[in-house]
Amino acid sequence: MKLLLVNPNISTEVSALIEAEARRTAAPDTRITVATAPFGVAYIETRFEALVGAYAAAQVAAQAYAQHDALIVAAFGDPGVGGIRELLPIPVIGLTESALASACLLGQRFSIITISQRIQAWYREVVHSYGLLDRLASMRGLDRQLSIGSVQQDHADRLAQLCDEAVRQDGADVIVLAGAPLAGLARTLRDQLPVPVVDGVSSAVRHAETLVALQPGSHRGGSFETPPVKPHKGLPEAIARILARTGP
Amino acid sequence: MKLLLVNPNISTEVSALIEAEARRTAAPDTRITVATAPFGVAYIETRFEALVGAYAAAQVAAQAYAQHDALIVAAFGDPGVGGIRELLPIPVIGLTESALASACLLGQRFSIITISQRIQAWYREVVHSYGLLDRLASMRGLDRQLSIGSVQQDHADRLAQLCDEAVRQDGADVIVLAGAPLAGLARTLRDQLPVPVVDGVSSAVRHAETLVALQPGSHRGGSFETPPVKPHKGLPEAIARILARTGP
Amino acid sequence: MKLLLVNPNISTEVSALIEAEARRTAAPDTRITVATAPFGVAYIETRFEALVGAYAAAQVAAQAYAQHDALIVAAFGDPGVGGIRELLPIPVIGLTESALASACLLGQRFSIITISQRIQAWYREVVHSYGLLDRLASMRGLDRQLSIGSVQQDHADRLAQLCDEAVRQDGADVIVLAGAPLAGLARTLRDQLPVPVVDGVSSAVRHAETLVALQPGSHRGGSFETPPVKPHKGLPEAIARILARTGP
Amino acid sequence: MKLLLVNPNISTEVSALIEAEARRTAAPDTRITVATAPFGVAYIETRFEALVGAYAAAQVAAQAYAQHDALIVAAFGDPGVGGIRELLPIPVIGLTESALASACLLGQRFSIITISQRIQAWYREVVHSYGLLDRLASMRGLDRQLSIGSVQQDHADRLAQLCDEAVRQDGADVIVLAGAPLAGLARTLRDQLPVPVVDGVSSAVRHAETLVALQPGSHRGGSFETPPVKPHKGLPEAIARILARTGP
Amino acid sequence: MKLLLVNPNISTEVSALIEAEARRTAAPDTRITVATAPFGVAYIETRFEALVGAYAAAQVAAQAYAQHDALIVAAFGDPGVGGIRELLPIPVIGLTESALASACLLGQRFSIITISQRIQAWYREVVHSYGLLDRLASMRGLDRQLSIGSVQQDHADRLAQLCDEAVRQDGADVIVLAGAPLAGLARTLRDQLPVPVVDGVSSAVRHAETLVALQPGSHRGGSFETPPVKPHKGLPEAIARILARTGP
Amino acid sequence: MKLLLVNPNISTEVSALIEAEARRTAAPDTRITVATAPFGVAYIETRFEALVGAYAAAQVAAQAYAQHDALIVAAFGDPGVGGIRELLPIPVIGLTESALASACLLGQRFSIITISQRIQAWYREVVHSYGLLDRLASMRGLDRQLSIGSVQQDHADRLAQLCDEAVRQDGADVIVLAGAPLAGLARTLRDQLPVPVVDGVSSAVRHAETLVALQPGSHRGGSFETPPVKPHKGLPEAIARILARTGP
Repeated sequence: MKLLLVNPNISTEVSALIEAEARRTAAPDTRITVATAPFGVAYIETRFEALVGAYAAAQVAAQAYAQHDALIVAAFGDPGVGGIRELLPIPVIGLTESALASACLLGQRFSIITISQRIQAWYREVVHSYGLLDRLASMRGLDRQLSIGSVQQDHADRLAQLCDEAVRQDGADVIVLAGAPLAGLARTLRDQLPVPVVDGVSSAVRHAETLVALQPGSHRGGSFETPPVKPHKGLPEAIARILARTGP
Repeated sequence: MKLLLVNPNISTEVSALIEAEARRTAAPDTRITVATAPFGVAYIETRFEALVGAYAAAQVAAQAYAQHDALIVAAFGDPGVGGIRELLPIPVIGLTESALASACLLGQRFSIITISQRIQAWYREVVHSYGLLDRLASMRGLDRQLSIGSVQQDHADRLAQLCDEAVRQDGADVIVLAGAPLAGLARTLRDQLPVPVVDGVSSAVRHAETLVALQPGSHRGGSFETPPVKPHKGLPEAIARILARTGP
Repeated sequence: MKLLLVNPNISTEVSALIEAEARRTAAPDTRITVATAPFGVAYIETRFEALVGAYAAAQVAAQAYAQHDALIVAAFGDPGVGGIRELLPIPVIGLTESALASACLLGQRFSIITISQRIQAWYREVVHSYGLLDRLASMRGLDRQLSIGSVQQDHADRLAQLCDEAVRQDGADVIVLAGAPLAGLARTLRDQLPVPVVDGVSSAVRHAETLVALQPGSHRGGSFETPPVKPHKGLPEAIARILARTGP
Repeated sequence: MKLLLVNPNISTEVSALIEAEARRTAAPDTRITVATAPFGVAYIETRFEALVGAYAAAQVAAQAYAQHDALIVAAFGDPGVGGIRELLPIPVIGLTESALASACLLGQRFSIITISQRIQAWYREVVHSYGLLDRLASMRGLDRQLSIGSVQQDHADRLAQLCDEAVRQDGADVIVLAGAPLAGLARTLRDQLPVPVVDGVSSAVRHAETLVALQPGSHRGGSFETPPVKPHKGLPEAIARILARTGP
Repeated sequence: MKLLLVNPNISTEVSALIEAEARRTAAPDTRITVATAPFGVAYIETRFEALVGAYAAAQVAAQAYAQHDALIVAAFGDPGVGGIRELLPIPVIGLTESALASACLLGQRFSIITISQRIQAWYREVVHSYGLLDRLASMRGLDRQLSIGSVQQDHADRLAQLCDEAVRQDGADVIVLAGAPLAGLARTLRDQLPVPVVDGVSSAVRHAETLVALQPGSHRGGSFETPPVKPHKGLPEAIARILARTGP
Repeated sequence: MKLLLVNPNISTEVSALIEAEARRTAAPDTRITVATAPFGVAYIETRFEALVGAYAAAQVAAQAYAQHDALIVAAFGDPGVGGIRELLPIPVIGLTESALASACLLGQRFSIITISQRIQAWYREVVHSYGLLDRLASMRGLDRQLSIGSVQQDHADRLAQLCDEAVRQDGADVIVLAGAPLAGLARTLRDQLPVPVVDGVSSAVRHAETLVALQPGSHRGGSFETPPVKPHKGLPEAIARILARTGP
């Protein structure tokens, strides 16, 4: 099985974190490829940055998905996932929906731990779009300047403390560590916390493998079918070929 | 990895369907055990039947879970799952939450296809309890007398037709085939339908394997911790031992 | 009129509290019977304990309901009420739905005062199942070890303080004292509090009398009709007779 | 016990229907008084008519409540109930909240049967204001010209048919007959219908008796306390006296 | 264009504030008329006061609307707006819905700043009636005795502080200054606050001008059509004429 | 005042429709500029097409917004509006939120009339993101092949019929004509329909003028502040300058 993880951002440091955690998680016969967006920002905290990441992810996805069995948009907040799911004939999932799927199978209410305060407004809208706001116990986040490639080392204690507060004060049954920069941290924290802890990358890799294994069929109808053929211009060639049904 | 599937009902025919689909789905190194409730009804359609199945499942779970890595309550509607999750130190999941987790990763709105009309009121309450009513496009079900062990053969055409109506008339992006008696039907239908189709047993087996693999940690705090020690009487010995923290 | 109150727990101390409050509340010509579960736990704080209480309550209900006009499941959280309502031809109500019905007629938003912290996650799910989460101003609870038969005496001041905070800080229009162990406390507190205060037992007794008096008819159709006839085994004889339509 | 029912409309025919049903329902020692609004419309179908009825009901309430133990605003839709509840030191309830309280204790989802189509938009807003839209299975109503005093005789068959459709097609567990003009019809229909049926007047009388019996205490704080003292002018004298805390 | 603003309260001081802000806001060719309720209270904080204000506003509206192009009910909370909208053939809007419309176009979540604590329960119900509770970040209010005509001068610093807390602690994207007594304050505060700030009067004047300019057509059907003709008595003559379709 | 309308699609025919309707609507002293996306599709029906349109709109917005007072993203569905609102120091609004703001001021529930069936899934998600799903009475749409520049002429009768069905069968109080290709149609239909009808372009022009006139202040804090400075690459120069705070 071949999984393509698309980092919708330009940070190769974060791509390395994603790749390491994906490899730790994947089944032995799963081949992991990580592609990094050729344009965009270092990491996504806002609606605008998500808009950029969505387009970058779509472009990378169209160019690189062939020969893969499933695609993961590897940024928390799932920029572009709904649109890319329409575009490709393979399963397409995001880190947030993956982590939330894991969390919902482990408990009733979850808290999301974030790398910044600013990022929470956008995350809240994403959780709302999935209809899961009632199961969100709280969001708690760092409020400091951060170096995106080393945030989990630099702020390990504070992150553990935020998790603990979410359980004790907010009633979280499960902790969701949000954001590709925190990929892998769940492995460290899980023994210190009184409740299960999940992250996006490992959840997404497993769920992608599951969707491939289940072979549920593709969208040949409904609202995730390939967009109707219509005039377009200036689109990347890889996208244009898909829209024209002439292959990837 | 060892998974225990508990059929909370007494039908060994349905247990056989569950076991067959679980084995078709499981990873090569996953050992599948199916336990059938020693008391209860043939299949669950109502709140009362779910109440009975919940207690039966809890009893079987307490007796048999040792040496297993995760437990699946193998009836759609997830009778007893929240309670059993408190009881056991391993992941415990149900067919409905598993199928819905798969469906939510494949599209935005899903329809549930049911084996009877009566069953829908209870399912609606279960979907509501998971906070996912907004993503439920519709429920459509058989309205005939049925032989529970052969329903998917006897009513194959009608079931396919209900799926089709859910997509074309109700806006379903994904079809969920509900109920252990339909275990395996997704494999047949998926080529006939314009959208992905999932079922509970195969979804649950995969998600259970995922939760074991992720090792997210257990509930040593929060609302799914083992119930507080308090006086009790007349409980099955296996349950009493767990509540007393003296082992399974 | 004859009302049967079923304590789904084993504590005869709590049954005595229930009985005393029920008698204080009931109309002169109402006969009160309290039955105590033959198995289970001392009081219910969690989903698992509710699962046990639901089955115990159903068994007692089936055995003892004959000759009664209505049945009350006398534990806050209403374990098994939906299922038992299907089973019996008489009105079946729970303490939570009864207290909430009273509260909703007295004001817009209510707070629930609980005997423990742990119990709140389960209560929240129950209030959600009734669709009333929007009217829940807050839950506040004791956080101490407690002796279930004397909690209202032992912690009287703290309970009054929690009520007061709910009004002043959370915007509660009405206070709901939760749990059979607090039965009767409303009579003491109501003069100290700035808003109306209700409890489950007295509300349930009155509402049961009302449903009997209104004679609204029974469920011969719809989702609360007696479960469809189907194979079963190992069920208590009293339940089996009802399912077979051969009497209580 | 003395109950005051205020018909917020001018129709003495409807007041007679209300009074008859209230007397049939009330306990032997309950004294029933029905007051009819001195100004307003024949019956309320719209937001504007409700606005008029609310003010008329408040005026009648202030003038006549003394010596009564509870007050019922006897029009479905509960015009003015929230406001009058602030004004008076006794329980104040409406027909809709009363019928819905009964319905919620009898089943999970209810349908409302209405005397006109136009009336449904307003009723929907009222159900929404109580947070119970999720439990509303449907509304179905007459679509004919009607004589308000004899609607239940003139359209008996059609009303029964609407109830039946609500159960069979919409999934109603309970039928709510809406509107004072249908007061008493539940007594006739209940034997013809497969599910329980309730109406507003009988429910309100019983619930008013309950709130008086429970003696939950009054609103000396919170959002239903008497409005703060402030300048006013031109108010009916009875209202002015209450606002000034100089008695009814 | 001619706009009629109806102050549903008796305070001419507040009417003067309304008029001044309306004139500052209106287009050069818009003629502003402010009418003050002949009876009622000084300002509305509760459901009862809103009930009075609704009837007063309806009466003034019916008497004075002729020759005007749109009508504004100039109290936050929008007393009577739904009903008056049915009554008149011109657009009728309230301060709350107007301010919220502005706020929703400026950001995702808003906080409402109020002149008292008591007023918040009623405002919350109003926001709920508009379906916008999910976008309400918080309400914060003064907790002091106030002189209604000078509240914005007397408590300027505290009001600015409340706005600031709403942004920094509650996540407000936009501030809504609630209540006619705060009319005009937004002009002062907007340079001190980190997010946009809107008020009801200026928003309503602009939106009324918009609805007149758009000429969207009137309600000749649907739930805001003039109420059906039916018997009535004792209504103000201006209202009676409208209900009888014989003119304003 | 200068308004910039950005057509996020490549169709100059649609841009002409937008421009014509904008000019018909705008105040005499408002200067209208319409910019057409240099890349993308002819019109947006799906999540993927919205993703493309969002990025195109952002790029055009950054390049062209200088010297304008407000910006309108002129496609129903509001692609990119949240993100672009963060980017620019001027008000940024979309057609959907504008039309819904108008509709909510005219009635309680609205129906959306669409140019295709496929488009409805995406629109539903947009309405959900604004929290207004409870006020959506229905969506009804054309189900035919269409020529985007002449759809309102080609299908005039069918569109009027869909509006009528929405009022009579779905309870719509207001009709929203969705999509820039229908710009201007409201002017024709409003005399044929029993309820008010609004469209996106005229609503957006008016609301943009309003937000400019109100001068509510800009986002110097909160979740719509300009995104935090961080590394980026490959972004259009106009966007890069804004992110670096070096001007448009």
